[in-house]
Amino acid sequence: MTGAPHRHFHDELSQLKDRLLHMSGEVEAAVDRAVRALLEHDADAAEQIIAHDSAIDELEIEIENGVTNLLALQQPMARDLRLLLAALKISNDLERMGDHAVNIAQSAKRLRDAPPITPAPELSDMARSVKAMLSGVLSAFVKGDSAAARAICRQDDHVDALHRSMFRILLTHMAEVPSTITAAMELLLVSRNLERVADLATNIGEDVVFMVEGTTIKHHAETGGVAGGR
Amino acid sequence: MTGAPHRHFHDELSQLKDRLLHMSGEVEAAVDRAVRALLEHDADAAEQIIAHDSAIDELEIEIENGVTNLLALQQPMARDLRLLLAALKISNDLERMGDHAVNIAQSAKRLRDAPPITPAPELSDMARSVKAMLSGVLSAFVKGDSAAARAICRQDDHVDALHRSMFRILLTHMAEVPSTITAAMELLLVSRNLERVADLATNIGEDVVFMVEGTTIKHHAETGGVAGGR
Repeated sequence: MTGAPHRHFHDELSQLKDRLLHMSGEVEAAVDRAVRALLEHDADAAEQIIAHDSAIDELEIEIENGVTNLLALQQPMARDLRLLLAALKISNDLERMGDHAVNIAQSAKRLRDAPPITPAPELSDMARSVKAMLSGVLSAFVKGDSAAARAICRQDDHVDALHRSMFRILLTHMAEVPSTITAAMELLLVSRNLERVADLATNIGEDVVFMVEGTTIKHHAETGGVAGGR
Repeated sequence: MTGAPHRHFHDELSQLKDRLLHMSGEVEAAVDRAVRALLEHDADAAEQIIAHDSAIDELEIEIENGVTNLLALQQPMARDLRLLLAALKISNDLERMGDHAVNIAQSAKRLRDAPPITPAPELSDMARSVKAMLSGVLSAFVKGDSAAARAICRQDDHVDALHRSMFRILLTHMAEVPSTITAAMELLLVSRNLERVADLATNIGEDVVFMVEGTTIKHHAETGGVAGGR
């Protein structure tokens, strides 16, 4: 390969990374806003999140097309190939996270007229942790930092613990006050959606490790996810 | 490219398809057995499903390695490239379905001593529909039949409707008989896991359409999935 097309290829790769960063920024904002809309009973904000999801879907298609073209035209080897395959999976995972944000926004709409959300601190804590995992793992991807990616996979346990704690609190609450059952069921689903976003961030972390080191850790890290994945 | 490596490549592709069929057969059996273990209060069967999940995980890694090698060594173009990328995504989706089967098996263990499962007919119907979607979509993949794949994506609406119906039935039940709350919550999660398996089968259908036609339908078909995806 001569110098020129090689440089061109690396320009394309860095553009691809920028797009993924942009997409993950959008997803982070969507998750954050959805939880806020829920806590603040803001149905308009929830509606906006739902409407904006198509922009996230478009980004995924754009990234997929970019990767497919690069694979076809540049026929990259080894580490560059792994980077392109990781980009494909990451965009797929980000799009699914966007869908979870939409699910949370839909719960927010249904809970618009519900009493104040309990337990708010646990929910806010989950949202904060999930956001930190997502931004951390994308930064690990861009830097090719597998140690950082592994550290983020381990944070998934904290989110799983928060989800189990939400489950117990909601269960107790609905058993004591049956009139809260509908709202509690909805909040259980919100918690489950946040827990799934953390799982997807963990998937991305595993892809980064594979990309950098060429070794698969995924099914070790996932054991906790399944156990916590009620 | 000469005749020999080309023939070799097509042997490899057909081996890859066989592996995916084998993997989807394993996943189908796991989902089916998990729902049966739940309905029959069979904790031993549930335990076996959980233990067997690592075999499904291994199949995914095997398929991923196969695809990565083919991409690196054969540098395929156009339709073959799309087939390899589809195989990668399908194995990823199948592995996630296996995790959902594990989640259902874990619910079955927790519900071992619970009273008979209600509503059993809806649950069985969901399991049957999900199984049909999964076997249909893999057959569409192997045959490259995008019309069949589209038809399967439409079946997702039926599973979403069953899930919503489960949700309503369980909600009513737990409001009337608060002692059933714990079991009902668990069954809601089972229903949600089945609904997610149907979503993943739909994803595969979308990948088959993309592979065959080179056009993306995913975010049209997914609208229903999000709306139904509480």
